[in-house]
Amino acid sequence: MSQTRKSRLVPEVDYGKDGKQAGFIRLFHSTHESAYGFLPIPIVVVKNGEGPTALFTSGNHGDEYEGQVALTNLIKFLEPGMIRGRVIMMPMANYPAALIGRRVSPIDDLNMNRIFPGDPDGTVTRQIAHYIDSELIPLADLVIDLHSGGSSLNYIPTALAKQSADPVLYQKQLAALRAFGAPYTYIQGGAQGQGGDQTLGSGADRRGSIALGTELGGAGAVNASGLAIAERGLRNLLVHLGILGREHWVEPPVATRFLDVRGPEMYVYAPENGVFEPLVELGDAVVPGTPAARIHMPETPWLPPVEIAFKAGGIVMCKRIPARTKRGDCLFHLASDLAG
Amino acid sequence: MSQTRKSRLVPEVDYGKDGKQAGFIRLFHSTHESAYGFLPIPIVVVKNGEGPTALFTSGNHGDEYEGQVALTNLIKFLEPGMIRGRVIMMPMANYPAALIGRRVSPIDDLNMNRIFPGDPDGTVTRQIAHYIDSELIPLADLVIDLHSGGSSLNYIPTALAKQSADPVLYQKQLAALRAFGAPYTYIQGGAQGQGGDQTLGSGADRRGSIALGTELGGAGAVNASGLAIAERGLRNLLVHLGILGREHWVEPPVATRFLDVRGPEMYVYAPENGVFEPLVELGDAVVPGTPAARIHMPETPWLPPVEIAFKAGGIVMCKRIPARTKRGDCLFHLASDLAG
Amino acid sequence: MSQTRKSRLVPEVDYGKDGKQAGFIRLFHSTHESAYGFLPIPIVVVKNGEGPTALFTSGNHGDEYEGQVALTNLIKFLEPGMIRGRVIMMPMANYPAALIGRRVSPIDDLNMNRIFPGDPDGTVTRQIAHYIDSELIPLADLVIDLHSGGSSLNYIPTALAKQSADPVLYQKQLAALRAFGAPYTYIQGGAQGQGGDQTLGSGADRRGSIALGTELGGAGAVNASGLAIAERGLRNLLVHLGILGREHWVEPPVATRFLDVRGPEMYVYAPENGVFEPLVELGDAVVPGTPAARIHMPETPWLPPVEIAFKAGGIVMCKRIPARTKRGDCLFHLASDLAG
Amino acid sequence: MSQTRKSRLVPEVDYGKDGKQAGFIRLFHSTHESAYGFLPIPIVVVKNGEGPTALFTSGNHGDEYEGQVALTNLIKFLEPGMIRGRVIMMPMANYPAALIGRRVSPIDDLNMNRIFPGDPDGTVTRQIAHYIDSELIPLADLVIDLHSGGSSLNYIPTALAKQSADPVLYQKQLAALRAFGAPYTYIQGGAQGQGGDQTLGSGADRRGSIALGTELGGAGAVNASGLAIAERGLRNLLVHLGILGREHWVEPPVATRFLDVRGPEMYVYAPENGVFEPLVELGDAVVPGTPAARIHMPETPWLPPVEIAFKAGGIVMCKRIPARTKRGDCLFHLASDLAG
Amino acid sequence: MSQTRKSRLVPEVDYGKDGKQAGFIRLFHSTHESAYGFLPIPIVVVKNGEGPTALFTSGNHGDEYEGQVALTNLIKFLEPGMIRGRVIMMPMANYPAALIGRRVSPIDDLNMNRIFPGDPDGTVTRQIAHYIDSELIPLADLVIDLHSGGSSLNYIPTALAKQSADPVLYQKQLAALRAFGAPYTYIQGGAQGQGGDQTLGSGADRRGSIALGTELGGAGAVNASGLAIAERGLRNLLVHLGILGREHWVEPPVATRFLDVRGPEMYVYAPENGVFEPLVELGDAVVPGTPAARIHMPETPWLPPVEIAFKAGGIVMCKRIPARTKRGDCLFHLASDLAG
Amino acid sequence: MSQTRKSRLVPEVDYGKDGKQAGFIRLFHSTHESAYGFLPIPIVVVKNGEGPTALFTSGNHGDEYEGQVALTNLIKFLEPGMIRGRVIMMPMANYPAALIGRRVSPIDDLNMNRIFPGDPDGTVTRQIAHYIDSELIPLADLVIDLHSGGSSLNYIPTALAKQSADPVLYQKQLAALRAFGAPYTYIQGGAQGQGGDQTLGSGADRRGSIALGTELGGAGAVNASGLAIAERGLRNLLVHLGILGREHWVEPPVATRFLDVRGPEMYVYAPENGVFEPLVELGDAVVPGTPAARIHMPETPWLPPVEIAFKAGGIVMCKRIPARTKRGDCLFHLASDLAG
Repeated sequence: MSQTRKSRLVPEVDYGKDGKQAGFIRLFHSTHESAYGFLPIPIVVVKNGEGPTALFTSGNHGDEYEGQVALTNLIKFLEPGMIRGRVIMMPMANYPAALIGRRVSPIDDLNMNRIFPGDPDGTVTRQIAHYIDSELIPLADLVIDLHSGGSSLNYIPTALAKQSADPVLYQKQLAALRAFGAPYTYIQGGAQGQGGDQTLGSGADRRGSIALGTELGGAGAVNASGLAIAERGLRNLLVHLGILGREHWVEPPVATRFLDVRGPEMYVYAPENGVFEPLVELGDAVVPGTPAARIHMPETPWLPPVEIAFKAGGIVMCKRIPARTKRGDCLFHLASDLAG
Repeated sequence: MSQTRKSRLVPEVDYGKDGKQAGFIRLFHSTHESAYGFLPIPIVVVKNGEGPTALFTSGNHGDEYEGQVALTNLIKFLEPGMIRGRVIMMPMANYPAALIGRRVSPIDDLNMNRIFPGDPDGTVTRQIAHYIDSELIPLADLVIDLHSGGSSLNYIPTALAKQSADPVLYQKQLAALRAFGAPYTYIQGGAQGQGGDQTLGSGADRRGSIALGTELGGAGAVNASGLAIAERGLRNLLVHLGILGREHWVEPPVATRFLDVRGPEMYVYAPENGVFEPLVELGDAVVPGTPAARIHMPETPWLPPVEIAFKAGGIVMCKRIPARTKRGDCLFHLASDLAG
Repeated sequence: MSQTRKSRLVPEVDYGKDGKQAGFIRLFHSTHESAYGFLPIPIVVVKNGEGPTALFTSGNHGDEYEGQVALTNLIKFLEPGMIRGRVIMMPMANYPAALIGRRVSPIDDLNMNRIFPGDPDGTVTRQIAHYIDSELIPLADLVIDLHSGGSSLNYIPTALAKQSADPVLYQKQLAALRAFGAPYTYIQGGAQGQGGDQTLGSGADRRGSIALGTELGGAGAVNASGLAIAERGLRNLLVHLGILGREHWVEPPVATRFLDVRGPEMYVYAPENGVFEPLVELGDAVVPGTPAARIHMPETPWLPPVEIAFKAGGIVMCKRIPARTKRGDCLFHLASDLAG
Repeated sequence: MSQTRKSRLVPEVDYGKDGKQAGFIRLFHSTHESAYGFLPIPIVVVKNGEGPTALFTSGNHGDEYEGQVALTNLIKFLEPGMIRGRVIMMPMANYPAALIGRRVSPIDDLNMNRIFPGDPDGTVTRQIAHYIDSELIPLADLVIDLHSGGSSLNYIPTALAKQSADPVLYQKQLAALRAFGAPYTYIQGGAQGQGGDQTLGSGADRRGSIALGTELGGAGAVNASGLAIAERGLRNLLVHLGILGREHWVEPPVATRFLDVRGPEMYVYAPENGVFEPLVELGDAVVPGTPAARIHMPETPWLPPVEIAFKAGGIVMCKRIPARTKRGDCLFHLASDLAG
Repeated sequence: MSQTRKSRLVPEVDYGKDGKQAGFIRLFHSTHESAYGFLPIPIVVVKNGEGPTALFTSGNHGDEYEGQVALTNLIKFLEPGMIRGRVIMMPMANYPAALIGRRVSPIDDLNMNRIFPGDPDGTVTRQIAHYIDSELIPLADLVIDLHSGGSSLNYIPTALAKQSADPVLYQKQLAALRAFGAPYTYIQGGAQGQGGDQTLGSGADRRGSIALGTELGGAGAVNASGLAIAERGLRNLLVHLGILGREHWVEPPVATRFLDVRGPEMYVYAPENGVFEPLVELGDAVVPGTPAARIHMPETPWLPPVEIAFKAGGIVMCKRIPARTKRGDCLFHLASDLAG
Repeated sequence: MSQTRKSRLVPEVDYGKDGKQAGFIRLFHSTHESAYGFLPIPIVVVKNGEGPTALFTSGNHGDEYEGQVALTNLIKFLEPGMIRGRVIMMPMANYPAALIGRRVSPIDDLNMNRIFPGDPDGTVTRQIAHYIDSELIPLADLVIDLHSGGSSLNYIPTALAKQSADPVLYQKQLAALRAFGAPYTYIQGGAQGQGGDQTLGSGADRRGSIALGTELGGAGAVNASGLAIAERGLRNLLVHLGILGREHWVEPPVATRFLDVRGPEMYVYAPENGVFEPLVELGDAVVPGTPAARIHMPETPWLPPVEIAFKAGGIVMCKRIPARTKRGDCLFHLASDLAG
């Protein structure tokens, strides 16, 4: 139902106009402190004539920064004269969350990447998701939503896609991911706990766009190598789409290694509350039975720690950051080479 | 005045008794939810006859974990028959903070390492500090308070001491730090923003103990190399003091490199609110003018970032973790080789 | 869908009974502190035989008071013998918000005037909106929802209506507004940030009632002249409808001046965070280019303020109160004489 | 609509497998602190061949404990060899609420027993309700949801059912309630403020299960006699269903006395804010006019208290615990002998 | 030092004037919401000529109510003509806490009965304690501070005193306690976790008043028998002091039984987090080894509960109410017959 | 004791150096989010040779803005070449409070103008107060602390002083106030609820400075006439002190009218909770018995309002803003012509 109702957000830019426009998408949010005010979500559009459209987003989770920095730099770099077609850049997609560096919105406590396609009459985060889904994604041939591990996780810099059910789109995803050129790229199958059909990327895929993503680092910090990968990858994507000319292409040092994350056994979860001591590092190759972590209980330090081993083999893609952990927290996930 | 008033905390252990005792220091805290309850601060004492006393503390800041894990392991390792003298281990010194993994106490919002010598009639954190200062430190020949960078900072694993004003004690500090054997050791002079005379270590020094500290990593996680350094260092300290026999000595792979942190120019602070992109890594050697960081403003991504350079030279010891930053946040500090 | 489901709220009064009844609408809200309790929303009905029904509401925003005082006074004044027909008065429509003087509900943080037609199965504020929309508005020939600027805005006392799409209803709105007799009356067209079709008034218009509103002052205070206008206006409306006799008519000192608020250029928004210094006062006539405000940054007081000018001309109807402001806050809005 | 969408929760147990399985239902909840973590809702299934299924739940309100203890004990008692059919036990149905002992969830502030049938795409509590409604209840011939008065109310231990609209089911409810064998059992008719069709029990009835409940005590504590009634009652229910053999039957000391709670006059509500002094105790028989309570105002102790009398007669089933009370809080409710 | 500085609180009554005066002690508290406002702490003084002074306080803990109701009633009963001397009644001693029914103040989170003698320059609760200590207690020959168990504990109604170090005062305490006539009276020796020298009573004793207390029930409710004991006891105390005439004496049905609470072994504490199931009731006599409680873990219901036994013998005076408990919470305390 | 301990704050400016220096006073505040960061309190010093020193402060209460704007403007205006002596300007004295526009600090909830002379080892606000008291005030011949009514009060723009106990200083206060030239000036005697000896001004007076203040408006807004009075007044003060030349003098349009605020009867307080309707306006002259306000209770709108009359006569200087009010809130205060 929400797809047919109209967004209440008002952009200060005109997506159909040639040139470089910068401004805010106005989300009117009537509060005790500001009865008629709006939340100013920054947006930049660079357009030159006919051609494909790329939609680049970051800040979907407010505590993931490599994408925010890469887009902030790209916004200053791109000029209409360089391109053919259109680039829409939204560096702080969940603006209230990104402004304070939190994964979720401080206004409605929602994780924007778990509520697509959003709702034009819902709380603030649902309204933003709906705007992106109903107003921006339909304009785009390709959408890349730039993520990192956020405050609680750290990732080897990687690109990714959720495999499209449409085989043509899937081939386009693979081609675009090769152009993006991250050292690792993984294909999400039935990965649990990662948003299912409620992510921005799933929304893009539903509407027929080439939907890509990244995990560029994490720990709530800016990772230098993840940032470099993103900056090169975004330009290469624009070249790949024909929006930028070949002179902007930068050859990745190595071809991307395709991986996948299959089932729940690729994930390690905390079995108890306590202090998490990791026993492997990002990028390590493990086999079933490799010790993964200990959970210590300094509040009763005379008791032994709980030890956890991997149940599957693969490469350690992702590791929890905060040592203090609760039963059910994800400590690691693995990936293994993509079949075929 | 607070030194002469008596602590209201009640230990379940008897510090004068031989053997291995484990229990809680009871801090009665009368709340709406628990009118007569106590906060159970874990404490373990291992004693065997006459001999020196070592006091090992961690969890002074609740989000610093290498020390908590090292002490939790040491508690299970040490038995009275192995030692001569006494080892007192307090792995969650600021228990309420450590239980939830926060730097400061959730009860009174106090940073325990900024309020020594504490107050027996103050709020919870002041009472704990007072107990350590007035009851535990006076028992100890040597005190080491195990810190890391916590949630907001990351450190190269290092040992440290605030130089005692007593030259004999200072020589004892240097000897003990050599025994501890961290790859780096720095001497705090007039370091700003690091607690001055209000730290646990300053309390120990005031009472004539050999007062040491560490910075074993950070980012709110357990750093494997920092943990290994701490485990070796603590045993070596016990050997150095004659509490453990020489058979427990583990030779550090390299002699510690002594550094110092002199004046305010060794620190880099954020000049604006925004997203912090570091341009150097821990351990890098820099000179005055080396670019240190950029601060980006994705909320107005069309504006240029602010660039910051180092004003002094040295080795990058410490780096901020969270990218979202405010004017006045510390981004880095340096150290340089200790003179003489 | 929500229109066809039944409200769970239970009134203590019988709207169909003659006489003066006072009591509460019970909204059962099962909380940790009160498992079977209800929120007591005050309601008064005065009825005498057949005749038209007027529904008067205030406290839709809990920090707007002139309407609350006017209705509290009117409730004590009106007796069945004075009237023909029915008057339903609900002085604290968003009871939880009004009880603590906040624009939005402390229970679900919702702005009641942005969620009509409500939801009988939603959180508390949605349930109240649904009750008004589905149970009270259908009883009413005329609905006036009494607003003021609230804590963040101040208004010249004014009446208003959102122009009904039904031309007959629109003429009735104009006639009723003339009877109400505020010095200014404005017609809302496409005013942005003011609730669109999600207000109580829009709900009333959708159901065919004559839907009116007011802005009687603001700043979270009771404005004496706004209160006087409301007290006279409400009685005049009852006379206009034939519910009260002509002897209750009080001639307004001047005929109302009809204005409208057309497009986004009638609004001035803060372009930066800082301290807002207004350069015009309520009621001033401005032209495009008239200086409107300065935004000062006392945190870096050596930097110049940002100056803002009006982009349109008109009368200053509304001004922000709190000086500390954020990018996107509404600082002023204008109105101009209604065409035709 | 929500009934046809699929739950996103993932059980670690297989409801169709014989044997005793214990694990968690994983509710993936992506937060700032744990991006890929799940909430571990405990579940135990004991199954042996074909036969009826009983679903036992507690912790629907997190501060009601007799049921949680009874199920925790039953989980350790039941073994597959004892039974024929299946028993599904979910002792902390609203896990986040039960973990902290609150009626409502700390995550979304929702009362789980007011939101059935839930929503697979809603916030955490709506997702749990939906899982129970769409995945567990359809497996069950009989459902009993074990409640008590919670933090704000205290009950005489009692069993209860909301009378099914299906007369066959109603007879089965009565038979099962006789087997359960609480000293009192009441039938909910149009009881106000008790959840209507939005409770777990209503969900079970809608799907054709025999839906029962209890009120086993309250005050946020474990009531010994309520616990004993529950332990006996649950086993007797399993015998009644043929899941356990007759050797597990324990004859209740007295046949249950059936009561009902008819209309709003059976409830007493606070007419003012103040300190509630009850004038009757649980189990007292009252008549219309019996003094029920005084409300004192110690903030103006010179003013007289407000006195309240019962408007109906019956047995005092339920009494408010916290003395500090607000207008609209429920102070008591009565029940009277069931007609017929 | 604090004893010599002057209170900033301003009473509306004149303690030296004959007659019955009721008003507020004004505690000026300058907040964002009320820059020049005061907290109105109710106080009533009844005085008639020369004679002894009794100071009666309640609401020291805001969630203890029997004393508040007893004093609210006594305030309306006492008239100057009945008495000789003076009665000062302060029913909501910690006014901000009592107004919301919390043990501790919502303003500074302080427990007033753990901060005597207070501080005239401290936060709100310290200022109130200081006023009572420095202005009211010095006027009083006898002080009784009426407590109950509060929200987390329940008590058999009892009177009590902390034994004065002055043997003459101690004899006067015993005599007054006999007059008060509660069924049980206990003498606090070194009771741990109950406030030591920081209570109102200790302040009264330090200043040479006869210092008494009570525990009249608890669970955050009004206990009818505890209230009756308090009402009789307060009048008897006034007769005992010669303030009221003998005609107001009501003979207690039984002489009080004197008990004491000696050492830490009289207390039972939770050894783990979980759900507390009590195995004894208030008033039960126990011996060492009597099972006291089980702690259940419904979050892992397959694990066995922890069982706790009493370490000492005596009568169960006090029991924890909330089932959800944390390591260190007090579950019970005992008392045994007073020697001699 | 606090006066002899040294502040831990570190200014970036050198108060003894000639020229114009702008920077921050660094208050190191070690938090979870920023372990070594400082709060950057802005400070500007303009100095030229020998001569008197003026200290101008605002933002002592963070929601009072006219002073902040006046100093922000003056900072940009003053250059060393214009002056003889020194001007120290601190526009956001309570920086954390001013940054969010709150009267009190969000860090420790303290009102800075109720804690002088502060404490170098206290929480953040106490440290700032101590720095001003011990480091800045001793440099100053004259101190003016610029206040307004803040969020809860509104004032006729006025200057003021607390009468110095030193008659010479008092004459200097009067002379300086004449130079400042506000239309009204009042002398605080025993004004209650306004900070006594714990204000910045009292600190300045204790140290022998000419201590002045203002109330320039309020309601949390910038008042244009109050701002104009402050801008003229500050320059005139500098001329009066000989720091600026006579060419900067601007003659006030009228000589200031001296008033005083004597006793508690000059204040009107709310006798009940409810909605405050003022019956007089700022500047009105009233006599004892003039109706001051009504308190309405829209939650029970059938009950009559409470009416309050003035007990003294005078001019209405100050009026409460927020209509929703609590017993004890100050609604108005009066002033009357200064005797002699």
